[in-house]
Amino acid sequence: MNELQPIFSRIAPIDRSWLERAVARQDSLTKPPRSLGKLEEIACRMAAIQQTLSPRVDRKRVIIFAGDHGITEEAVSPYPSEVTAQMVANFLRGGAAINAVARTARAELTIVNAGVASPIPAIHELSPGIEFVQRPVRKGTRNFLKEPALTEEEALRAILLGCEVAADAARAGVNLIAMGEMGIGNTTSASAVTAALTQLSAVAVTGRGTGVDDEAFLRKQAVVDQGVRLHAQGSGDAFHILRTLGGAELAGLAGLCLGAAAKRIAVICDGFIACASAAVAVRLCPAVADYLFCGHLSTEPGHAIVLELLDKKPLLHLDMRLGEGTGAALAMSVVDAAVRTFTEMATFESAGVSDKQEAAKKADG
Amino acid sequence: MNELQPIFSRIAPIDRSWLERAVARQDSLTKPPRSLGKLEEIACRMAAIQQTLSPRVDRKRVIIFAGDHGITEEAVSPYPSEVTAQMVANFLRGGAAINAVARTARAELTIVNAGVASPIPAIHELSPGIEFVQRPVRKGTRNFLKEPALTEEEALRAILLGCEVAADAARAGVNLIAMGEMGIGNTTSASAVTAALTQLSAVAVTGRGTGVDDEAFLRKQAVVDQGVRLHAQGSGDAFHILRTLGGAELAGLAGLCLGAAAKRIAVICDGFIACASAAVAVRLCPAVADYLFCGHLSTEPGHAIVLELLDKKPLLHLDMRLGEGTGAALAMSVVDAAVRTFTEMATFESAGVSDKQEAAKKADG
Repeated sequence: MNELQPIFSRIAPIDRSWLERAVARQDSLTKPPRSLGKLEEIACRMAAIQQTLSPRVDRKRVIIFAGDHGITEEAVSPYPSEVTAQMVANFLRGGAAINAVARTARAELTIVNAGVASPIPAIHELSPGIEFVQRPVRKGTRNFLKEPALTEEEALRAILLGCEVAADAARAGVNLIAMGEMGIGNTTSASAVTAALTQLSAVAVTGRGTGVDDEAFLRKQAVVDQGVRLHAQGSGDAFHILRTLGGAELAGLAGLCLGAAAKRIAVICDGFIACASAAVAVRLCPAVADYLFCGHLSTEPGHAIVLELLDKKPLLHLDMRLGEGTGAALAMSVVDAAVRTFTEMATFESAGVSDKQEAAKKADG
Repeated sequence: MNELQPIFSRIAPIDRSWLERAVARQDSLTKPPRSLGKLEEIACRMAAIQQTLSPRVDRKRVIIFAGDHGITEEAVSPYPSEVTAQMVANFLRGGAAINAVARTARAELTIVNAGVASPIPAIHELSPGIEFVQRPVRKGTRNFLKEPALTEEEALRAILLGCEVAADAARAGVNLIAMGEMGIGNTTSASAVTAALTQLSAVAVTGRGTGVDDEAFLRKQAVVDQGVRLHAQGSGDAFHILRTLGGAELAGLAGLCLGAAAKRIAVICDGFIACASAAVAVRLCPAVADYLFCGHLSTEPGHAIVLELLDKKPLLHLDMRLGEGTGAALAMSVVDAAVRTFTEMATFESAGVSDKQEAAKKADG
């Protein structure tokens, strides 16, 4: 993994002294101390990430990596693999859930084809605010029951693609990223990656994804179990786990986390697959964790396990399980509001509002 | 309460057939069935409230009622009563937390002086999007340990004021309201109202509000206990409970819920005080409940109790306890995104995406 060292070397943990300065400012604002709860923690971390008491969330971008999975040969999803390409076209036309959520959050949208198997239906004109990056590392991964999903070179290429997409966002002045994914079969991949990272059983980490029936669910658990035994039994090597069991979109998202942290941009993780990818990035470079927020808790059982591995609390609990970055994009408004309260509120002094301490002093005096 | 009958008669429960039509539309959209979780439920209810499969959330208004409380004579808050007027001025200048959150949600802001005790510092120019309604029913309530907080006539006037403010919003084309409050001492009032509505003990429903110390906390619990014994022991009359133990801003908010339901406008309730007011409205007219969403779960212990009384699940869990409508306004983005996914997403058919059933049919065929 020498190729990633230059990125790792640019990622530093956030500076705790910025956190302290931000907490002191919070306590001067016209509200009872700590009464904005998690909004205060978010704003303080954003201040530390951006190294300023005037953090900004005025340019938001949702970035979706798409890829296909050879493991769909084992009938682990109720949807055919072609749906990945069809949904990419739907994103580009502006008709998917993530388009509506991104519009609500006033966020741009970048779709990255990191490894879609089927041809993507031609789109004549992209909707405004939508960008399409065509950089597939291969057309779908290999079936991991037969061989590693990606070669080392392919996995590395996908990670570096993610880093590049983050650097592009940084150049555009983006100050908040929501990460999302699309890939039929990728809950199976994410389950295998999670089982390998946590050493938990396939049964514990595997859920029904987009909604398989009982028979397919048992098959999916068995596939995850066999995949982990075949490639990653007892392995602590996150890159090896990612390339043998993961996929191009998972590797791309891991790279996005690395690249965003290197540029000091906060990233909101989405559901199970996005968080499993983020967990790989954190295993590769632990300081990445300081730059991550977790958007929501999905109903996919592996998600809570990955959140625990990341040691992160989700911002939203809305029983969503769609992916595409929808939970992360929805949480952008929470981060935005957190930062705006921090930067736009008056202080007790500037607003001429009596504060608690002052009242107490008067009572004593 | 004959004066409220004309309002009650205009409030009807939502029509379940609209819910069914909305659920059918949800299942045609390009996502696995139910994968948007609570967003789907929210959008379906918005469709039923507005009686259309094209519900809209394009004009949002945060409405804050402010009032003071005679019970502050008993030293139940760490802040002096003057802070209510000072914070109203802060809202009007745009420097409070709710201003920042409302701007994030692209919502207008209406501040209603329903009964502030101190003079409100003069504001020379209102910020854009802010409206100030000066209609105090009296300058602060009476100390409920000595006499009822409001007369019947005052309480009724405050409720009707709330109805009027809702009607104004309806005339302006507002299709989503977030309700908030400001009033030093009003967690004590809300605790007493909640204890009376639920027949629970003062200890169960009373919290530390803006942050009283142990001594003041014990005093606050005793005050709540005595107030309920004095005015509302075993009373099931919500209007009597509201006027003897509540306040002008609580009565105004109860009226706002009634008035909004009469105009078929959805209302997002905020924290403990707002939800206690909403619970009074629902006790007066149960069909109001269909029009209410609960924005968040605050850390004030009485809030969870009132949410249970309302039989509502909160949309956000962010450990906030500020009031002002901040939790409700934050949840506006969730409702907005829910409605936009519902109205803006492509269907499987229009997007040319293979759906699960279709794939299954092909497999059978």
